[in-house]
Amino acid sequence: MAKEGALDELLTEVLSRYDNSPSPHLKEVTCAAIRHLHAFAREVNLTREEWFAGIMFLTQCGKISDDVRQEFILLSDTTGVSTLVEMLAYDASSSSLTDNTVLGPFHAGGSPDREFGESMLVDPDDGDRVVVRGVINDVDGNPIEGVLLDCWQNASNMFYAVQQPGIQSADNLRGIYHSQADGTYEIRSIRPVPYPIPSDGPAGDLLKKNGRNWWRPGHLHIWARHPDYKDLITHVFDVESEFLDGDAVFGVQRSLIREFKPDDGGELSTTFDIVLDRA
Amino acid sequence: MAKEGALDELLTEVLSRYDNSPSPHLKEVTCAAIRHLHAFAREVNLTREEWFAGIMFLTQCGKISDDVRQEFILLSDTTGVSTLVEMLAYDASSSSLTDNTVLGPFHAGGSPDREFGESMLVDPDDGDRVVVRGVINDVDGNPIEGVLLDCWQNASNMFYAVQQPGIQSADNLRGIYHSQADGTYEIRSIRPVPYPIPSDGPAGDLLKKNGRNWWRPGHLHIWARHPDYKDLITHVFDVESEFLDGDAVFGVQRSLIREFKPDDGGELSTTFDIVLDRA
Repeated sequence: MAKEGALDELLTEVLSRYDNSPSPHLKEVTCAAIRHLHAFAREVNLTREEWFAGIMFLTQCGKISDDVRQEFILLSDTTGVSTLVEMLAYDASSSSLTDNTVLGPFHAGGSPDREFGESMLVDPDDGDRVVVRGVINDVDGNPIEGVLLDCWQNASNMFYAVQQPGIQSADNLRGIYHSQADGTYEIRSIRPVPYPIPSDGPAGDLLKKNGRNWWRPGHLHIWARHPDYKDLITHVFDVESEFLDGDAVFGVQRSLIREFKPDDGGELSTTFDIVLDRA
Repeated sequence: MAKEGALDELLTEVLSRYDNSPSPHLKEVTCAAIRHLHAFAREVNLTREEWFAGIMFLTQCGKISDDVRQEFILLSDTTGVSTLVEMLAYDASSSSLTDNTVLGPFHAGGSPDREFGESMLVDPDDGDRVVVRGVINDVDGNPIEGVLLDCWQNASNMFYAVQQPGIQSADNLRGIYHSQADGTYEIRSIRPVPYPIPSDGPAGDLLKKNGRNWWRPGHLHIWARHPDYKDLITHVFDVESEFLDGDAVFGVQRSLIREFKPDDGGELSTTFDIVLDRA
């Protein structure tokens, strides 16, 4: 084991090279990353072989990534870093605001506009039909009109439309809803099912080697946007879904779990009210 | 800013998923990496935009890497992590052992055997001719016979042969020397010149944006191997070279710097004795 003093000197020398950085913020982030990298390597007494395995792991994560597959996001999701960044960005913990959660890798822009109460199911699917409805308010309880609810969800075969071009219709289980003057919205869809995250790459390998599962509980994604309010990226989880206690990407918040029950019209439905923060 | 308590809970939840890992050592390394990643993100209050820029940075490092270009090694080199790993692997700080330094990305297997005193310069080159000679001993001062000295160096045009297939001969400035019964070895080559590390990728971008240089001082690589001794990966640096105080990859050790002076035979030469550690 090399002397701690020599290792400290090395770190000091590395950090000193940033003394004249023209970008104070980039310097701060870069130097923090370097300090934590050194601390990690020293803590585990990283061997040459482990170091090289790490280099190859990261290289493979880059190689396997493309327009529809992002292995570094998967790695970030499965280590809780994505959730951490969301928590840093949007803190609902001490207020009435709706909790947020991870974006995930399956959102796509350009979803079609949907009418109040329209179903976003386009393709044949034997899943249970469900309704998600609620009111969107500000923190003072005033309804917000014209909120865009960008929604997306997987089909009963477990895949999102973006994962199956040519198999699912491009617009299947995707849609943009709008809140009405009284703040209400209504989405028709199918009951979401659990699904495995892509596990055939380096991030999945690492989960498997550590004995971790690579499944997510069933959920509907909602990204709420309005010019006067902060973006809210969240999920609606089904209380009956498997994996609520073991979500591979740490997206579950207790406050986001709902029960689907038959409503007065005989439909399986749940209420998901939303509170947005002023921008 | 999210409450520290909620961020601590998230980390605890993530780490708990490794409780049943079948690989205790992989678990230790993975959990340490996760703890340091979380600590980094919290320390700099990482935004969604910065997080995404980081994801794209790592992805590009993977994309640009191939058989002869390894951007993650470059990143490791330029952040001092490669040197750190070498220091952890081989501690010469409290003994008479020869100091080690980074391997670098330009070593290739299969260099030709060279005779005692043979030049490893194959192609035309207007660089100064030099001799590097010395004795290889164990820590008790006993000469070691049959040590393989795997040597490689850049040409006066700044490039290594592996970087210029079809331009330089494959064996140019590469060779494997062998120590004699009295432990002596003798290498003929050219005076090494400083060179820039590849700076046209993400690792180089990061150096430039932080105002860092991307040059290395002139050096000859030696990788000493013998079945009974620990591998030594080191450099011989030229005291007259530029960038000795600013090596972009933190490879310079004071003990490895030498002066080339005319010897009795009129050749520009230096002495580089080597002490190896028993395996």
